[in-house]
Amino acid sequence: MSTRLSQLFVRTLREDPVDAEVASHRLLVRAGYIRRQAPGIYAWLPLGLKVKRKIEAIIREEMEAAGAQEVHFPGLLPREPYETTGRWTEYGDNLFRLTDRKGADYLLAPTHEEVFTLLVKDLYSSYKDLPLSIYQIQDKYRDEARSRGGLLRGREFTMKDAYSFDYTDAGLDLSYQAQRDAYERIFARLGLEYVIVKADAGAMGGSRSEEFLHPTPVGEDTFVRTDGGYAANVEAFTTVVPDALPVDGLPEARVFDSPNTPTIQTLVDLANAEQPRADRPWTAADTLKNVVLALVNLDGTRELVVVGLPGDREVDLKRVEVAFAPAEVEAAGESDFAKYPLLVKGYIGPWSSVGPVLGTESSSGIRYLLDPRVVDGTQWITGANVDQKHVLGLVAGRDFVGDGVVEASDVRVGDPAPDGSGSVELARGMEIGHVFQLGRKYAEALGLKVLDENGKQVTVTMGSYGIGVTRVLAVIAESTNDGKGLLWPAEVSPFDVHVVAAGKEPVVWETAEALVTALEGKGKDVLFDDRPKVSPGVKFGDAELLGVPLIVIVGRGAVDGNVELWDRRTNERTPYTVAELVEVLSK
Amino acid sequence: MSTRLSQLFVRTLREDPVDAEVASHRLLVRAGYIRRQAPGIYAWLPLGLKVKRKIEAIIREEMEAAGAQEVHFPGLLPREPYETTGRWTEYGDNLFRLTDRKGADYLLAPTHEEVFTLLVKDLYSSYKDLPLSIYQIQDKYRDEARSRGGLLRGREFTMKDAYSFDYTDAGLDLSYQAQRDAYERIFARLGLEYVIVKADAGAMGGSRSEEFLHPTPVGEDTFVRTDGGYAANVEAFTTVVPDALPVDGLPEARVFDSPNTPTIQTLVDLANAEQPRADRPWTAADTLKNVVLALVNLDGTRELVVVGLPGDREVDLKRVEVAFAPAEVEAAGESDFAKYPLLVKGYIGPWSSVGPVLGTESSSGIRYLLDPRVVDGTQWITGANVDQKHVLGLVAGRDFVGDGVVEASDVRVGDPAPDGSGSVELARGMEIGHVFQLGRKYAEALGLKVLDENGKQVTVTMGSYGIGVTRVLAVIAESTNDGKGLLWPAEVSPFDVHVVAAGKEPVVWETAEALVTALEGKGKDVLFDDRPKVSPGVKFGDAELLGVPLIVIVGRGAVDGNVELWDRRTNERTPYTVAELVEVLSK
Repeated sequence: MSTRLSQLFVRTLREDPVDAEVASHRLLVRAGYIRRQAPGIYAWLPLGLKVKRKIEAIIREEMEAAGAQEVHFPGLLPREPYETTGRWTEYGDNLFRLTDRKGADYLLAPTHEEVFTLLVKDLYSSYKDLPLSIYQIQDKYRDEARSRGGLLRGREFTMKDAYSFDYTDAGLDLSYQAQRDAYERIFARLGLEYVIVKADAGAMGGSRSEEFLHPTPVGEDTFVRTDGGYAANVEAFTTVVPDALPVDGLPEARVFDSPNTPTIQTLVDLANAEQPRADRPWTAADTLKNVVLALVNLDGTRELVVVGLPGDREVDLKRVEVAFAPAEVEAAGESDFAKYPLLVKGYIGPWSSVGPVLGTESSSGIRYLLDPRVVDGTQWITGANVDQKHVLGLVAGRDFVGDGVVEASDVRVGDPAPDGSGSVELARGMEIGHVFQLGRKYAEALGLKVLDENGKQVTVTMGSYGIGVTRVLAVIAESTNDGKGLLWPAEVSPFDVHVVAAGKEPVVWETAEALVTALEGKGKDVLFDDRPKVSPGVKFGDAELLGVPLIVIVGRGAVDGNVELWDRRTNERTPYTVAELVEVLSK
Repeated sequence: MSTRLSQLFVRTLREDPVDAEVASHRLLVRAGYIRRQAPGIYAWLPLGLKVKRKIEAIIREEMEAAGAQEVHFPGLLPREPYETTGRWTEYGDNLFRLTDRKGADYLLAPTHEEVFTLLVKDLYSSYKDLPLSIYQIQDKYRDEARSRGGLLRGREFTMKDAYSFDYTDAGLDLSYQAQRDAYERIFARLGLEYVIVKADAGAMGGSRSEEFLHPTPVGEDTFVRTDGGYAANVEAFTTVVPDALPVDGLPEARVFDSPNTPTIQTLVDLANAEQPRADRPWTAADTLKNVVLALVNLDGTRELVVVGLPGDREVDLKRVEVAFAPAEVEAAGESDFAKYPLLVKGYIGPWSSVGPVLGTESSSGIRYLLDPRVVDGTQWITGANVDQKHVLGLVAGRDFVGDGVVEASDVRVGDPAPDGSGSVELARGMEIGHVFQLGRKYAEALGLKVLDENGKQVTVTMGSYGIGVTRVLAVIAESTNDGKGLLWPAEVSPFDVHVVAAGKEPVVWETAEALVTALEGKGKDVLFDDRPKVSPGVKFGDAELLGVPLIVIVGRGAVDGNVELWDRRTNERTPYTVAELVEVLSK
């Protein structure tokens, strides 16, 4: 096959699109692969569509190899199943909702767990029908508050979503592993570096959950890893809990005046002046910072919680949100404090669900949750719940207890990994795949049961497995481009070879035509820049922009039967005779 | 390739779905090809998806052969371009509309003329870039008042829509012809009978327009044809206009009392008793029936028109709607008559835009339009616009003229075709394709111009070409099934061969396995019914239902190395040895 550039529906642009922040976005638009239709919504031009199809073909092959069967669901779905599982509401503003002419509610599906579950319920009824894995490659919709990066986070995007159905936990483990293995093969074939990180299942429910992250500075996710093989996104990272300490013999807590302590260091200095610890001076890590957070529930109601954490840490709202999902979490504001005069701003101390530990005792109903590091026997400098007073030597487990533990602190370089594999480093990544053990959440909500070997009804256990196809395309473009243009891996390049006729001499054109025909004969898909009135310089620039990794330049050397192979990746140009080149490219 | 039925995600149903009126709908659901998600919205199971993909592949091949390049647009599009062309409003309730989180209006696209036009405007600027034909295969949405027939008329459906761009009318003719030829090849390859009928461009605007109709009793469209090659849908049929007759010497019109004339025949009898025509008695075709219609405009306003047509004809609202598009047309109701006391129900006569020709003269503003048969010199019996009075011998062109002509009458068997090819017969058909010359309507509205050879800006002229992919699938199922089950043409069958292991003997299973392997080796895609505990009878029933046209039965004859080839189309069963069969099927 060959395509003449003079006939191809494409135009390259000299200028970057004004809304483009990342290289893949800039280059995919400039090279004429995609065009914006609305924020986060793109049309696919022939070149873009070719690359997308190649990625989809690889995914399909590996899905079939993993025993998954392809189906296809509508993008427009009725409200009811999503109402049953609660996601009609949980998705909040991220869901595109609409009403038909009869007033029935519909949504543009952001993901399809509900209807896959119902389809299996419709067709299957026995353990003999399982395991089953089915998938689709389909366009999904999320009304993102901030779509960004072109295809990196769109409002309409293509996903491969697969779902597995088993009737035992062991079966789910096998189905999960089969998809996980397929993902490794897919990303390897796409030449895409990835890290598999532990992830929190979050709003999706379920137990085991891992993300495939592509490490990239433009990534939206921060993840942690150790040399010892541990990897997790920050939401899923769990703090190593120190051993509890003996309480006996510790000195009594002591309240002291602490005006003018605007920073933790000034407070620590004052405490050391007041009374150092028996074993060593106080440090910032010995202060207990009590932060008031507001949970915003789906129904709009607001609940306050107080979180106690070491003063040398910051609250990581993303990590906290995992604990309180599906509520959103934000710092408490002035109006929250106004409603709770018990909260003495700047001097908040430990708390319990019935009120402050120190200061005015009174039932507040505000929960008090502690960082996992605040184990029994640890001694703290903290607020006294009274204006301009702190307390030192307050002992966890003796003087106060929390209503629970929460992973609220930020994760830092050097923190120990929970698996003992060493201390973590931080990196940024882009999620390109996600494998979930959903468990029985959806099957339970929607009544998907089968008869087991003993004729007993058992609820099916499910997995959900997603790859963002359009995002993967953008991530490949992001990770392979060289600034001058796109630079596709051979597996997904829109063409195998890009032949440039660079010169006006008849021999150039004859040689180019003959070369194209010869390469076609070898089964190559060739893009032929046959534009008659375009200068070689412009053609080379366009070739770089379009990103086919192998370019053949047919120039004046054609007089002697010579052409040049330009390897975009190494930027080397190697002369060949036409016959040699056809031989080399056919390998 | 082969697929084991025991592993395939499918379940056949004994019962017809309750909402199914047509065979294709019943069978596609019962055979496990599709499942309903909402009215007119379906999910595709593996078998259905395979057939759909094969149809799409044929369409793609022929589009590429016709020089059309594939692109892909989103289903979710912003309001603005559709606002500019007026279709945001014109589509009325058929359009799914929604609002995003920021309050911006979007639609689920029912067709994509606007955005294709804008994309070409974005990329191209010179006549040298044209002609261009681009297409997509994409899911579209129409909120049909009554979705029906399963996939025949869905609310979400897959279409191939192509658009051509030229800068001369002659160019458009060529582009149009290339698509039309491709359609002929596509439907021939799909084994689908079709008639190309003249169609009215209707709400799409433009000039030349033809529909590809598949003749079928379940079709929604009525079309007319002659043995001489004329074919048109009833909306596009044009009446043969008789020659005008001399007015001189015709007797004067005469008003007569006409109470108790509930039918046209009683009126004709009374007129003949009163005064027959000079040449012959009056007949029903000599009565002029004046029908009051209400045009409901897009903005909801209502306008009345009076249409005069021969009394032996009925008004065909579909034909009238073409004349008044985009307004909808309905019979005037009591409240309409109440507002216009000039309209004497049962005695309405000719009219003019300034009021009735007879009776009380007064300006009404109601337009009076005539059937094309009402030529000058024709004599009529008609209402006198006075209660209980008619008039006879009222001469068109002498006593009354209309404000215009309208094709309002129904078309009947025996009516002469406008091309002189004989008298028409009526048939029902299902639209499977449509080719339109849009002309400059969209390019003008959206400002798509190019520079011509003389450096002058010229507006581009466009064509629009659609095939309903999912509807085509249903029409194939409708036209090929034999009542017992689906019966696919080989080109789109989900499998080449369906092998049934019919028996418990080990030799049956060994032979079946060997046969499947041998057929796979010959490049055949085999469905193998390997279900161990299912009786041969049930397997045969399922094989009939699933619709693979060639079935191989491996039964007890396997002991002697014999199997049977069951041709579903002829229902013949032919014995072969395994080796012979592999040979026969490899041809």
